[in-house]
Amino acid sequence: MKFIAEIDVMPLKALLDPQGRAVTTVLKNMGMPEFENVRIGKHVTLEVESDSEENAKVKVEEACKKLLANPIMESFHYSIKGN
Amino acid sequence: MKFIAEIDVMPLKALLDPQGRAVTTVLKNMGMPEFENVRIGKHVTLEVESDSEENAKVKVEEACKKLLANPIMESFHYSIKGN
Repeated sequence: MKFIAEIDVMPLKALLDPQGRAVTTVLKNMGMPEFENVRIGKHVTLEVESDSEENAKVKVEEACKKLLANPIMESFHYSIKGN
Repeated sequence: MKFIAEIDVMPLKALLDPQGRAVTTVLKNMGMPEFENVRIGKHVTLEVESDSEENAKVKVEEACKKLLANPIMESFHYSIKGN
């Protein structure tokens, strides 16, 4: 069966996020001062072939830990749904 | 009131996504051939000060259109929740 995973990889809360900081500043300069605390990470969607949702989760978790997220600087969350 | 927005900015389906392609290949080379169709975009979280959820949506939509997403190459989705 094919499952679809949606993964968010974000910079850890404890770390500065220079890209997010820059966007906050630019939004203010563009006349949108109501935005704050912008943080920018990655959003990954993928298809995973697996016999069960449980196994799909194990595989997605492995891919996140080994490749998609850097645990020193990033945290990740994912959700999986059937295709 | 403060609202929190979660925004996904993804490359349009019709376009190639070289970064996602590369990740698919690397996953295969790492012994994880069950992944396919990886696509990589941005995930943005931000706080927006607004008197109502309706107005917060208008502001977030404006920020996406003017700055966060490039409509020629990217689509965006967002959700808003109260803080």
